[in-house]
Amino acid sequence: MANNEDQFKKVISHAKEYGYIFGSSEIYDGLSAVYDYAQNGVELKKNIREYWWRSMVHMHQNIVGIDAAILMHPTTWKASGHVDAFNDPLIDNKDSKKRYRADVLIEDYAEKLNVKAQKEITKASKRFGDAFNEQEFITTNPRVVGYLNKKTEVLERMARSLEAEDLDDVKLLIEELEIACPLSGSRNWTEVKQFNLMFGTKLGASADTATDLYLRPETAQGIFVNFLNVQKTGRMKIPFGIAQTGKAFRNEIVARQFIFRMREFEQMEMQFFVRPGEEMKWYEYWKETRLNWHLSLGMSKENYRFHDHEKLAHYANAAADIEFNFPFGFKELEGIHSRTDFDLKAHEKHSGKKLQFFDPELKENYTPYVVETSIGLDRMFLAIFSTALQDEELEDGSSRTVLKLPAVLAPVKVAVFPLVKKDGLPEIANSIIEDLQWNYNVFYDEKDAVGKRYRRQDANGTPFCITVDHQTIEDNTVTIRHRDTMEQQRIKISEIDGIVSKAISMKEWLKQ
Amino acid sequence: MANNEDQFKKVISHAKEYGYIFGSSEIYDGLSAVYDYAQNGVELKKNIREYWWRSMVHMHQNIVGIDAAILMHPTTWKASGHVDAFNDPLIDNKDSKKRYRADVLIEDYAEKLNVKAQKEITKASKRFGDAFNEQEFITTNPRVVGYLNKKTEVLERMARSLEAEDLDDVKLLIEELEIACPLSGSRNWTEVKQFNLMFGTKLGASADTATDLYLRPETAQGIFVNFLNVQKTGRMKIPFGIAQTGKAFRNEIVARQFIFRMREFEQMEMQFFVRPGEEMKWYEYWKETRLNWHLSLGMSKENYRFHDHEKLAHYANAAADIEFNFPFGFKELEGIHSRTDFDLKAHEKHSGKKLQFFDPELKENYTPYVVETSIGLDRMFLAIFSTALQDEELEDGSSRTVLKLPAVLAPVKVAVFPLVKKDGLPEIANSIIEDLQWNYNVFYDEKDAVGKRYRRQDANGTPFCITVDHQTIEDNTVTIRHRDTMEQQRIKISEIDGIVSKAISMKEWLKQ
Repeated sequence: MANNEDQFKKVISHAKEYGYIFGSSEIYDGLSAVYDYAQNGVELKKNIREYWWRSMVHMHQNIVGIDAAILMHPTTWKASGHVDAFNDPLIDNKDSKKRYRADVLIEDYAEKLNVKAQKEITKASKRFGDAFNEQEFITTNPRVVGYLNKKTEVLERMARSLEAEDLDDVKLLIEELEIACPLSGSRNWTEVKQFNLMFGTKLGASADTATDLYLRPETAQGIFVNFLNVQKTGRMKIPFGIAQTGKAFRNEIVARQFIFRMREFEQMEMQFFVRPGEEMKWYEYWKETRLNWHLSLGMSKENYRFHDHEKLAHYANAAADIEFNFPFGFKELEGIHSRTDFDLKAHEKHSGKKLQFFDPELKENYTPYVVETSIGLDRMFLAIFSTALQDEELEDGSSRTVLKLPAVLAPVKVAVFPLVKKDGLPEIANSIIEDLQWNYNVFYDEKDAVGKRYRRQDANGTPFCITVDHQTIEDNTVTIRHRDTMEQQRIKISEIDGIVSKAISMKEWLKQ
Repeated sequence: MANNEDQFKKVISHAKEYGYIFGSSEIYDGLSAVYDYAQNGVELKKNIREYWWRSMVHMHQNIVGIDAAILMHPTTWKASGHVDAFNDPLIDNKDSKKRYRADVLIEDYAEKLNVKAQKEITKASKRFGDAFNEQEFITTNPRVVGYLNKKTEVLERMARSLEAEDLDDVKLLIEELEIACPLSGSRNWTEVKQFNLMFGTKLGASADTATDLYLRPETAQGIFVNFLNVQKTGRMKIPFGIAQTGKAFRNEIVARQFIFRMREFEQMEMQFFVRPGEEMKWYEYWKETRLNWHLSLGMSKENYRFHDHEKLAHYANAAADIEFNFPFGFKELEGIHSRTDFDLKAHEKHSGKKLQFFDPELKENYTPYVVETSIGLDRMFLAIFSTALQDEELEDGSSRTVLKLPAVLAPVKVAVFPLVKKDGLPEIANSIIEDLQWNYNVFYDEKDAVGKRYRRQDANGTPFCITVDHQTIEDNTVTIRHRDTMEQQRIKISEIDGIVSKAISMKEWLKQ
């Protein structure tokens, strides 16, 4: 646990130090739960997005993309249920006037119980040394058992009350646990109320005539409202999919865990339209296909697991999360949802327009069922980045920090160094760059000793370094150094592009 | 003029019919001045964005990218001047309660004078036939001269009053011209007032503690607030640039001309940081470099012109537009602005943080000057699309509609057809697709006669069609058909990828 927290802190500071992620508007002391992608981060993010797009859209003849606007007609969100039911339970402290998420107050309380249990474990571990059996201690020590049982009980009761929309019981639970406002210290709470998570804005200048709009809280609805236009102009036949990447916004009261839960984030979604009754077949197909996509990037299977939803959302008849082992534990990275015909039917009802498909084989019209695959681009970034960041002990006793990003996703593919800043070596290095930069992102560095430059590129995630030295002048050969193995080879300048292109080829990766 | 209007209508309907652009939320009768990119549009837009990114970021060792969030700390917009001065002049009609942009009312009035003049010209042209000298008629016919002079006078006075911020005179002009509300017909107007164009929203749930945020009205400020973080973590040395593509939002009261002026749009911007005093050199450099970028796409030089700003914005000491000949005339497509140190200094003042660079050659600290290149991605889309859309008379007397998109930007690179839907030809066509789709976007079509399929791909902008026929079974050859020349060649299946890859290679295009 402690190690994971350290690793997470390291991820956050490495992301900043190496130009991957900055807090938004840092010079103004930041905007909470909003982040900017920096010079390396933007390339990694673009590469993940492109890897997804090409594997989902270009590799499937029956899937096409769209790019719908963030602003949509407000009735869209009435139809989707977001106006009425996209809420967080909030509670105010009457003394501090500060507002909290009721569920977060309770989760924090539960976490404190957990921390207490962990402290007992650490203490006992120190006391007993090698003789310590952690598993046994957890299940037998009365204090630890008490803390952990209480924690489970609290979380389960909260989940039940929220699912039953019994907000009175949520408040009762807060009172029974004697949870106090961290600011005022008082237990003088208001009722728990639901608060809508959509960001609102107004279109038009006049207060009388302005239209209330929302920043979309999900990209899926942009696909549903365009379903018929795409189907007709693209002459699509069921089964077919519409894919989209783009920003969505949620006014989270408590947004945490770095880029895992942000107020502004990016989704990569595909809605697959199928015959009613065939949705479970496709649901299984997409669960498997999507997991394989993750594994194609060389991600370890042990870091993934499916979590099947027992309690389903109102629109779904089957749903599973692909969970990833983040530094803070297994959490949702992607969702596969069998959404039935809920959304299309809702838009039919609110728009008065038929959103149906005439199936030439069945010779009948129907409203298609939908299976969705929905992944958070920022979460995928965090999964890739936190897995890649490693501290390695080397044979010579030294250590290095290396960011083992899949070469196909790495921001910089090749760094080119002149061994020294003279004798025409920088000119040769630059001419190599001029040749390669047509094809991918390349980086020039002449500062410090070559060993130090290698370490910088290791930490930067660059899969290849090329060093130009005096022998290069004589025989047009250079040293290529591989990030992961640190192996060095002497190759011809003319061989560089072949080696790099193969290593970063989407085909080579997706085929795996 | 009439022809251009027809061409523009054709552009809009073709964009819808062939899956390039749909109105947003069309099933709810649309959201004004917001558009969605459809299955072909999203690919064209992505390809334009990528062509820009690679030429600006990957091809310049001293330019890096970022991807800042749309939501920023609100002080950003105080510093940039947008809170105080990003306004449109609005006027209300007291009877209809409807609100208008004062400048648009006046422009509409001027346009009516223009229409009257055009009608006289058309009438005379019909009357005189071949003997009609339009240029002479325009300069001598008293009515036409009267209309056109009045038009110029009205527009010039309005421009003067707006620049001087003399809103009283703008109202006076509306009264003198006896402009009536189109809805109520009355001339009962309020004062003219300035209205801020930023979309506002609120962060946080509690009315007491909510923060007023804005949807960014431009992407540039995301670069300025990150300037020092990028410079330090990227070890950038002046001169260097930071590039960004992303959405921006403006609450335009009257947004017109299809995707030319939208409420939600995408910018592609690069801010180039230079030594104070060297900005004019770089300003000229970027004017030339950016124009060449447009020409590299095979766009005709006659469709471009520079418009140097005489009246400069408060932050600029030199500014030029790259104007493009849209179907509705020459309009701004890209801006090159020498922004001085205005923005960085303003952020220094509002944040209390130094945003300076230590120049190792000059051995001194300074706030850099900035030269900006800023292009509208949607406008570039419209420029490319409207230029590409052509009706051609063919030698056999028939005609075709062809979308001559640059191959590097075309949504679909290759369409593959089996000549007939049997004899194993579809299987061969699909195996070709399976091979090619790793590398680029490919399309399969087996419906209708091959000639009709060619026409569909012409209208779709696809540069190559491959037809698989019975000879293919014998000798592994296919017919490749070129969109622009309609030329057909017999080639080996194994040659397809080489031909297509060369034709769509960014290197080949950018080198031009």
